[in-house]
Amino acid sequence: MSRFVHSRNVSTATDHIPTCRVVTAKKISERLFAELQEDIKDLSRKPLLVGFLASEDDGAKVYAEWTGKTARQNGFEFELRTVDREELEERIINANQDPKVDGIIVYYPIFGNRQDQYLQQIVDIEKDVEGLSHRYLFNMYQNIRYMDPARTKKSIIPCTPLAVVKILEYLQIYNTFLPYGNRLYGRTITVINRSEVVGRPLAALLANDGASVYSVDIENVQQFSRGEGLRKRRHSVSEKTGWSLEQCLPLSDVVISGVPGDRFKVPTHLLRDGVCCINFSSQKNFDPDVKEVASLYVPAIGSVTITVLLRNLLVCSH
Amino acid sequence: MSRFVHSRNVSTATDHIPTCRVVTAKKISERLFAELQEDIKDLSRKPLLVGFLASEDDGAKVYAEWTGKTARQNGFEFELRTVDREELEERIINANQDPKVDGIIVYYPIFGNRQDQYLQQIVDIEKDVEGLSHRYLFNMYQNIRYMDPARTKKSIIPCTPLAVVKILEYLQIYNTFLPYGNRLYGRTITVINRSEVVGRPLAALLANDGASVYSVDIENVQQFSRGEGLRKRRHSVSEKTGWSLEQCLPLSDVVISGVPGDRFKVPTHLLRDGVCCINFSSQKNFDPDVKEVASLYVPAIGSVTITVLLRNLLVCSH
Repeated sequence: MSRFVHSRNVSTATDHIPTCRVVTAKKISERLFAELQEDIKDLSRKPLLVGFLASEDDGAKVYAEWTGKTARQNGFEFELRTVDREELEERIINANQDPKVDGIIVYYPIFGNRQDQYLQQIVDIEKDVEGLSHRYLFNMYQNIRYMDPARTKKSIIPCTPLAVVKILEYLQIYNTFLPYGNRLYGRTITVINRSEVVGRPLAALLANDGASVYSVDIENVQQFSRGEGLRKRRHSVSEKTGWSLEQCLPLSDVVISGVPGDRFKVPTHLLRDGVCCINFSSQKNFDPDVKEVASLYVPAIGSVTITVLLRNLLVCSH
Repeated sequence: MSRFVHSRNVSTATDHIPTCRVVTAKKISERLFAELQEDIKDLSRKPLLVGFLASEDDGAKVYAEWTGKTARQNGFEFELRTVDREELEERIINANQDPKVDGIIVYYPIFGNRQDQYLQQIVDIEKDVEGLSHRYLFNMYQNIRYMDPARTKKSIIPCTPLAVVKILEYLQIYNTFLPYGNRLYGRTITVINRSEVVGRPLAALLANDGASVYSVDIENVQQFSRGEGLRKRRHSVSEKTGWSLEQCLPLSDVVISGVPGDRFKVPTHLLRDGVCCINFSSQKNFDPDVKEVASLYVPAIGSVTITVLLRNLLVCSH
């Protein structure tokens, strides 16, 4: 009898537990939106986001439409202003001065050169929901989290890097048992892509939160870290001469990839068993067999980015 | 002005964040006790735990007193029966048959040889709060979590290994975002001590929950793991020939040590930055400088073990 009970239990215990949990951006956004609803419901009026479209770029148009739809669905006002790119600077200045406007988003690329960076600095810092003002970028790299010494107003973080942070919080890679500011301590993370828009700020954010980060691009590998025992107040960067994905990936608990185009794939055989993988490229940077070795896989992040944009709008409108 | 504001913010941002969080067993027990209170309050009578003391061992006496005090403080009945060791077997059999007795704990060592293991099997499995019955041990090693196919009754897990699991849950090393049964997937853990009472069952439990575990004793290193992608239903064990702490520690997110005596110390310089360290020896297995490199440090586990014993009593009395 005892033997019989054993074998029956063995059979119930073999019920399949899926090894890799695939988590969609939609699922993650739902919870973030639910949190936003809480914050919105006490406001006297709906926060107004104004979008400026001065670009013929298809990606920009699609993103503009998607922002509008998501904003309205979630209790925000959105107004898209299609303007000639030569008038854009004046129009932004007008919106800066209009007290009804809570946040401003400009859809890039416009000139596709350094003039775009100039325009980014025209948006009033109080309305810069994208977090592209120099002061915000400075704070982010310097690990300064508030705008005021009394810590009443948060410094805005650019949407895509912040979206990845929110995803890592959702997946409980951030350990909330550790003190705020150190919640990635002990984690090793590889970020593939070191663009000024996403890859480099993301590596800095994660390292400022305590992780040891390998930042990988086509040229080289850099390590972003606050040092042993997190002795530094903010991250510093060192070159890992001779390193490539071959050295970084087997050490990493988390691998975040955002390489444009469909040619690059993260080599699955180099990944550590039980790794957490996040793709922020619009193409798939991971092969389907990533699910054989990953514990968590987030195939895309788009809708989380929009949620984070609306979250920034709420911070601006306070 | 802008420069001035920057430097003020830099100074507020340097406020010291303690790097290592030291967590006491008392703190962890408090939460576990609070959960127990919830479960107790609907019972028609207080569960009765009977302890048998047939040993002159000072440790056994202290443990018996401590169990009694903690049990009574937390809404359980405790009765200590001091008996001659030659009468112990009969007295256990009587308690087995007494419907008023919900759980039985026997304080070892008694004979200090294999007769003690014989006595462990005398305690009725329904009253075995220590989880030492062969059936419970079999289930634990086989990763069978319930006593019945309908999964209404949990299989009891021995107190000290279970206490370590509860501590790892408290510290959020278990990721509750992962499916139950796989919540340590991606974690590398070293357990120093491979005793039959704590070290080996603990390594098995952690590996069954998805971790890759290095089990280290004076003789050798073994790896306990469910294999790549957690393909196996339960852990298997392989020898790591030529390995020692020197290989295991730099790879480990979590280091759990329980070496008796005051001579052994975990070499701090081999620990990974941001590691989580737990000591279950009654002496300190970690040097004080562990706090320079660990993110989390639990210096002792005693009171969690008692809480878990009372938790097992509650499972038995249902």
